[in-house]
Amino acid sequence: MTHLLIIGGSDAGISAALRAKELDPNIDVTVVVADSFPNYSICGLPFFLSGEVPDWHDLAHRTEVELKQAGIRLLLDHTAQQIHPTQKIVQLSEPTERSLSFHYDRLIIATGAISARPKIEGLDLPGVYFLRSMMDSFGIYQHLMQENPTSATIIGGGYVGLEMADALHRRGLEVTVVEHSETVLKTVDASMAWLVGAELQRHRVDVVTGVKVETICTCGNKLILTGSSHFQHTTDLVIVATGVEPVTEIAQTARLELGVRGAIRVDRKMETNVSGIYAAGDCAETYHRILDQAVYLPLGTTAHKQGRIAGSNAAGFPQEFAGSLGTQVVKVFDLAIARTGLRDAEAISAGFQPKTVEIEAWDHKTYYPGAHRLHIRLTGDAQTQRLLGAQIVGHHQAEVAKRIDIFATALFHEMTIAQISDLDLSYTPPLSSPWDAVQAASQVWEQSISGFS
Amino acid sequence: MTHLLIIGGSDAGISAALRAKELDPNIDVTVVVADSFPNYSICGLPFFLSGEVPDWHDLAHRTEVELKQAGIRLLLDHTAQQIHPTQKIVQLSEPTERSLSFHYDRLIIATGAISARPKIEGLDLPGVYFLRSMMDSFGIYQHLMQENPTSATIIGGGYVGLEMADALHRRGLEVTVVEHSETVLKTVDASMAWLVGAELQRHRVDVVTGVKVETICTCGNKLILTGSSHFQHTTDLVIVATGVEPVTEIAQTARLELGVRGAIRVDRKMETNVSGIYAAGDCAETYHRILDQAVYLPLGTTAHKQGRIAGSNAAGFPQEFAGSLGTQVVKVFDLAIARTGLRDAEAISAGFQPKTVEIEAWDHKTYYPGAHRLHIRLTGDAQTQRLLGAQIVGHHQAEVAKRIDIFATALFHEMTIAQISDLDLSYTPPLSSPWDAVQAASQVWEQSISGFS
Repeated sequence: MTHLLIIGGSDAGISAALRAKELDPNIDVTVVVADSFPNYSICGLPFFLSGEVPDWHDLAHRTEVELKQAGIRLLLDHTAQQIHPTQKIVQLSEPTERSLSFHYDRLIIATGAISARPKIEGLDLPGVYFLRSMMDSFGIYQHLMQENPTSATIIGGGYVGLEMADALHRRGLEVTVVEHSETVLKTVDASMAWLVGAELQRHRVDVVTGVKVETICTCGNKLILTGSSHFQHTTDLVIVATGVEPVTEIAQTARLELGVRGAIRVDRKMETNVSGIYAAGDCAETYHRILDQAVYLPLGTTAHKQGRIAGSNAAGFPQEFAGSLGTQVVKVFDLAIARTGLRDAEAISAGFQPKTVEIEAWDHKTYYPGAHRLHIRLTGDAQTQRLLGAQIVGHHQAEVAKRIDIFATALFHEMTIAQISDLDLSYTPPLSSPWDAVQAASQVWEQSISGFS
Repeated sequence: MTHLLIIGGSDAGISAALRAKELDPNIDVTVVVADSFPNYSICGLPFFLSGEVPDWHDLAHRTEVELKQAGIRLLLDHTAQQIHPTQKIVQLSEPTERSLSFHYDRLIIATGAISARPKIEGLDLPGVYFLRSMMDSFGIYQHLMQENPTSATIIGGGYVGLEMADALHRRGLEVTVVEHSETVLKTVDASMAWLVGAELQRHRVDVVTGVKVETICTCGNKLILTGSSHFQHTTDLVIVATGVEPVTEIAQTARLELGVRGAIRVDRKMETNVSGIYAAGDCAETYHRILDQAVYLPLGTTAHKQGRIAGSNAAGFPQEFAGSLGTQVVKVFDLAIARTGLRDAEAISAGFQPKTVEIEAWDHKTYYPGAHRLHIRLTGDAQTQRLLGAQIVGHHQAEVAKRIDIFATALFHEMTIAQISDLDLSYTPPLSSPWDAVQAASQVWEQSISGFS
């Protein structure tokens, strides 16, 4: 019997386990989980803290019972200490701190990521929190319940930072977001990010950009932040959301090669440089389909896909990761903000000759009530006319997420922008237009390129 | 100067005109419009009649002024009487019935379709209406205003029939739908159509299936319908919505060949058998991308695309129609019902070995409030594992329309169903799942095919 050991019980680890069992019901699958929360949706933490998800148990993608029914053995509260690749043994420590050895035939490392610790003094003060794990969220929750803070400051205006701004505003706190770049949500272009900034301000979230927080101090029961440009700000609660870093300590005990941004180097089978050891999810590199090279792009969707591929290969069913396009969406108050593929600057770095247009279009025929305006930015290569990327900002009920997915599917197939008009997309006046907004944008891009051929 | 004459001022005709002007600003473009309503959204008529669009003027895709500004000459209330292809002349009759001759270099026929007249006695009685043109809708509107009907009966449970059921129910009428098949909405499979039937009944629309209406009589100020299976029903107003037929009289004066279901035969350049004469929209055949043959599939989206291709070719810029996949969506009360590609029966006729699965999946993570259940049917070829078609039924705010478009884009590229899991689709808990519902369906289909490879 083949023994598959998986270190890590979040998205990638559990996806790998399920896929291996699906393909080979006889494989013996054990998942080592560092805490008591296997297969929890980390992406759901802001919605638990907002109160929209009252019971954190609901954040589990699957329950422990469901996982066991799928034939997966879970070792909860176990930590992997050391991998011995020659003997194919992993040293684990139990909750009681006792050590045990576990023999494997195939090993998948899915240790995920931890919050990045920016260079700010005072990160360990009471009232200063990161948000990455269930335990992190319990800490914040307890603070909210016991301390009754009336204001919160979020350091970092990325996905998690903005979701937390929305969440804490929903709880009635006065919220400030401090971002060191010139706009929040650096993952979209400035013109789109401004729309997001305006949405935050419309909900009275104070947005401070271009400021690098340097120090957090305690003064009475208040926290005082100071930073560049004479920034000074008093608050009750601080959330630090400045990105994540891959967790690779255990990988390094097996001398696995690290790659981009210190993530575990893998090939498209998600195999590391040591045969039979795979890595997947936020601890590993991600193959980018357009760039045709490894990047570090830790996302839940990617973790699921990579885990599934790793599980398939570990079970003896060769499969390659098709690659990421960096497709992402986030909801901030009433807006959905989505992107896929490359933006201008990224495309230039990759050697393309990008041309970008931005249009406004309606999600459906304006004569039918409730039409929402969509802002669409489209980037294509001026020479080959190939689609390179798209960004959409619009109301969260305007099918922004699945519209970006049309572009993502087009990108997957290296379509030209002109070909997008050839797509037979659905139409009814309450839900679309005869040329869907994604096609309207494509046609404007086409027109922007001089000379038709 | 090249003279382009276009007969027909609805979707296909206007799209052709705009595209020709866009590609060659020097081309002389004239559009002959049989009525005074160029470029009106026929698909919007039910929403005018429901009261959701209070002013019918809003149904215009573009105003007359906008069309003139685009450099397009409109001959309103002009009817084409005869085409002389050898002399390249079209005989037109003016509103005053005077005849005039118009020379063309290129001609596009976009005469659209008219309502099919089923074999029912009494179709011309007062209170019995078809719904296809602006004038049709004015007739119904006037009847609603002046006669104050309290009940309406719709013959035909297709797209227009169900939209009118929704519309007239919204006006407070008691509505009955009579459909001769066993389910309404024959364009989707029975299990999906039943969900639609349940939605109609939930709104107290009476649905009568398996009945062929044979006679309509007047009795006092009531209309009495009789039909098969001893059907008898009294009502105030009848809408007949049993499909459409291509308008080809003018095409036949030029001896243009007709094809499938009497529609004008065209190649993929939308050119007829007479060089320099094109046809597009509901009067013409449609190339089906999966079947690789002509079908008759009159849809607004297709009319726009075909018109654009015809306009491009007529202006001297060769382009081929990429083909239809039969992608459609309709909103009926709170449901959106969408399809693309082939269903089992259609796939079998086309020589495939279809395998179909049906699943339920949520539009987004259930822990986030407001999740809606989606019903997805997926058809693939058991031998090649190629995706052949998809159907989705779900709440109209559950991104059903744009999810079917992901499948449509996948179909366009002849993806296998397994490859759909490779697509990098967007995810955030309020809008999706790490594996989007479309991927969840794909994975169930994969599992249903025995043996993994």
